Amino acid sequence: MAGHHGDLRIPIAISARHAHLCQRTIDALFGPGHQLRPRNPLKQIGQFAAQETVSMVGPHGRIENVRVMGPPRSQDQTEISRTDAMVLGLHVPLRDSGDLRNTPGITLEGPRGAVTLTGGLVRSLRHIHMSPAEAGRLGLHDHDIVRVAIDTERPVVFGNVVVRVADDYRLELHLDTDEGNAAGVEPGTTGRILDD
Amino acid sequence: MAGHHGDLRIPIAISARHAHLCQRTIDALFGPGHQLRPRNPLKQIGQFAAQETVSMVGPHGRIENVRVMGPPRSQDQTEISRTDAMVLGLHVPLRDSGDLRNTPGITLEGPRGAVTLTGGLVRSLRHIHMSPAEAGRLGLHDHDIVRVAIDTERPVVFGNVVVRVADDYRLELHLDTDEGNAAGVEPGTTGRILDD
Repeated sequence: MAGHHGDLRIPIAISARHAHLCQRTIDALFGPGHQLRPRNPLKQIGQFAAQETVSMVGPHGRIENVRVMGPPRSQDQTEISRTDAMVLGLHVPLRDSGDLRNTPGITLEGPRGAVTLTGGLVRSLRHIHMSPAEAGRLGLHDHDIVRVAIDTERPVVFGNVVVRVADDYRLELHLDTDEGNAAGVEPGTTGRILDD
Repeated sequence: MAGHHGDLRIPIAISARHAHLCQRTIDALFGPGHQLRPRNPLKQIGQFAAQETVSMVGPHGRIENVRVMGPPRSQDQTEISRTDAMVLGLHVPLRDSGDLRNTPGITLEGPRGAVTLTGGLVRSLRHIHMSPAEAGRLGLHDHDIVRVAIDTERPVVFGNVVVRVADDYRLELHLDTDEGNAAGVEPGTTGRILDD
């Protein structure tokens, strides 16, 4: 691994609970043929937060106003924090995005209907998106594991951070709300990759 | 600082939101002369979780079933996580226990009345309690700052962990729910102090 990773400030995005849905699920929740309406673009190219929200209903509780992300995907993937999992009353595994084998389902409610998904509910492994050029500069490769230090009033070093490299990715550390809050992340806070 | 701190496993307690109250506030919430009823003892000697709970009411939201801790204290101190602060709609500072200068207040509701406290609402700085004998063994002193590693599926190193030493303290790392969830702490998970 190349040295001096720490010279590069890694922007941080905190991922609140959200849902990536397939068109079939969007149809059931929002009506047949419904098109997601972009609310704001994400830094990862082509991705957006939609105006649409859903409710999540678990055995012990419910969570309202869960943001839907676009564009539609080929499979439903809903992502929550461990705090959210406790509210819902579910044991939810930590997973790399897209790895949905043996994951629990969840009931979603939209304005036009409800759907009980049979899988796809995960807690997301913390990860860093980067383009191939950024990865080359850092001497990193897709699926490398790094440690990232965040220097705030609540300094934390996160281990087991997965590097994800793709053409439409841009340098950004993704944490969930538990992680962001535990590290005292504020707008503008950055991370640095530690040289092991 | 003595070496080989890492040999000692530090038990972890996750502090969910809770309230330490003075008798005057207990009277207002639960009725004049009310005595807190112990529910379960804490590891720190003489401290207990009470059967009593209160509701917290903030400008943007409320939180029910907030545990009251006993015995009564000389001043009210309510402790929440950053996630809780966002639910309530308040900016809440990180503080060492007992340092309540310039802290916001909160409205508490009990079965017999409500009280709007003028201060004492904090997020607690993560800290390790220990007895003088345990501190001696670790080569640590009251108010030392250490780093603590937690080795789970979500490994984390927490910086800025305050050491607190007193006769009635017993070795225990106190984290809030955001920190515990971010580090994947489960019952029986322990920490280890890193040698700097």
